[in-house]
Amino acid sequence: MNPAAKPQPNDDVIVRAHGGGGEMMGRLISDHIVSALGNQTLNALTDGAVLPCNGKHIVMTTDSYVVQPLEFPGGDIGRLAVCGTVNDLAVMGGRPIGLSLGLIIEEGFRLDRLDRILDSIAKAAREASVEIVTGDTKVIENVRGDGLFINTAGVAELDERARLGFDQIRPGDAILINGNLGDHGIAIMSVRDGLEFETTLRSDAAPLNAMIGDLLSSGVAIRFMRDATRGGLAGVLADISDRAGFGIELSELALPRDPHTRAAAEMLGFDLLAVANEGKVLLVVADSDAERCVDIMREHDTGRRSARIGRVVASNPPLVELVTEHGGRRIVQRPYGEELPRIC
Amino acid sequence: MNPAAKPQPNDDVIVRAHGGGGEMMGRLISDHIVSALGNQTLNALTDGAVLPCNGKHIVMTTDSYVVQPLEFPGGDIGRLAVCGTVNDLAVMGGRPIGLSLGLIIEEGFRLDRLDRILDSIAKAAREASVEIVTGDTKVIENVRGDGLFINTAGVAELDERARLGFDQIRPGDAILINGNLGDHGIAIMSVRDGLEFETTLRSDAAPLNAMIGDLLSSGVAIRFMRDATRGGLAGVLADISDRAGFGIELSELALPRDPHTRAAAEMLGFDLLAVANEGKVLLVVADSDAERCVDIMREHDTGRRSARIGRVVASNPPLVELVTEHGGRRIVQRPYGEELPRIC
Repeated sequence: MNPAAKPQPNDDVIVRAHGGGGEMMGRLISDHIVSALGNQTLNALTDGAVLPCNGKHIVMTTDSYVVQPLEFPGGDIGRLAVCGTVNDLAVMGGRPIGLSLGLIIEEGFRLDRLDRILDSIAKAAREASVEIVTGDTKVIENVRGDGLFINTAGVAELDERARLGFDQIRPGDAILINGNLGDHGIAIMSVRDGLEFETTLRSDAAPLNAMIGDLLSSGVAIRFMRDATRGGLAGVLADISDRAGFGIELSELALPRDPHTRAAAEMLGFDLLAVANEGKVLLVVADSDAERCVDIMREHDTGRRSARIGRVVASNPPLVELVTEHGGRRIVQRPYGEELPRIC
Repeated sequence: MNPAAKPQPNDDVIVRAHGGGGEMMGRLISDHIVSALGNQTLNALTDGAVLPCNGKHIVMTTDSYVVQPLEFPGGDIGRLAVCGTVNDLAVMGGRPIGLSLGLIIEEGFRLDRLDRILDSIAKAAREASVEIVTGDTKVIENVRGDGLFINTAGVAELDERARLGFDQIRPGDAILINGNLGDHGIAIMSVRDGLEFETTLRSDAAPLNAMIGDLLSSGVAIRFMRDATRGGLAGVLADISDRAGFGIELSELALPRDPHTRAAAEMLGFDLLAVANEGKVLLVVADSDAERCVDIMREHDTGRRSARIGRVVASNPPLVELVTEHGGRRIVQRPYGEELPRIC
């Protein structure tokens, strides 16, 4: 940094909320990243890019992982990296054909710990039936003590049957989810805070490509899919209402939630709708195919608690509304910043 | 880290040399990464993976960038990231079709500095005729003060005419390089040390895909290509002699070297053969096509100082030998660790 530079006001620097999957992050991406690098593919701001390749199409995606702690109940940074990238490909209609692995490791990091995380990467990749095909390793000085950052990128063949996108969504479509909300974020937070229910809470990190592949093969009319990571379900639903221009009506009674996760979230003061998941996909499907979708999803371990949780409505302005357990209504807003930092 | 853990001997932890592109890094990759994750594609340990895709093949590669300082004469971390990934695809015979961009940014990082680096990424991508098609952004706490790490992954369509690999190399083949050795590493080091010739030394970071594409289109018999980044030319030549099983004879008189870079390297005590480049490709080509290759390369700005610098020989054991300016011979060894840390 230039030592002669004057101190700058806070809005001229990166702050934590720029990484949280909410409004601040949206502005960073649109006003800085897309404005510098924008092109038709990047501007779509989907979970992955669809590219023409060898006469057909591929999907490409990337994610970096900076989670703390590196190991937590139900997973670790390595499992997270594989699942996150596989899921981003799958929700775009891609069949993963290869992942890359970029490791940034601090000096002093223990090799036995690295081996545990590498074994976890190998296990998650086997679960997802995908291979790590190329990689890169960098070593940095030990200053932070964080130990390890991981980037995974992924490539998939596009299932050419898939017709997915915000523009496919119609009023009356059903909203589905494949299980409990917020288990990942709350598991991480409970470890950090040393909460006593630490042992019963587990991250949901899991590869969803087998379940999603079955849905696509079955020919059900899926309009849109997205994994509800940073920003949680609320973030995905806000994107849908913004980009599709329709409202969403959610039923609180229908939301699958683990009672321990729910209790922990209440104690910690978090709204499970805004908490990150790592093994949850939100689907928008034709109402007539909703039950069939739920049946197919429930055949998979990753979808046992699948449920229809709401529907698309032609409201103006397009709002996301939650019908509460008590029959009231509240507006679900896009999370502003980062409710839980370093969650993925 | 577990506070109860006993202190471990040094060989149980990551040290800086694990990231240097030399012997230590080779052992980290083979004994830990490949042993956990290995498969036929990864085990090839080439600059990128060749994968079947949509009935033909693609190339996939990844690199993380942790260079310090982030901005330096001739480039910055953004330009480096684009060039490095494009070049890894090109040396595998790939025509790049898309790059991903993963940013890990520290809180407090200035947005105007981020904008400069994003503009540099955009400029390098235009030079390489490739787009950033997907990305990810994470924010971490400001502890280190490093500011920014970048990962780029890339995908390319494989030029199916290319027949590249260690197994294609034969005694008698010519060794070519597209210009001066070590400009990148020495430029970085001179900035760090505040050397007075700082202003005349510039990184060579440049995308080489146009030049390499012309070579492939021309039908010349290229056996093998690799960009000589970490570990420098010595690292690439050591890989060739190990994997192809032949010796290499280099002519010191033929090596293109900038006089300022050479003077700085001598002052700093570095061997230019082992210093990182970011715009240099080493080629092994059929002897009969060597002059034609050099002519094609010299038509490009990135290849003006291309030269034939040596040949493959059937020596036993397979050694890399340098015929010095004075007619003597010395063995060129694989660099052990990291001569210049955080160079890319």
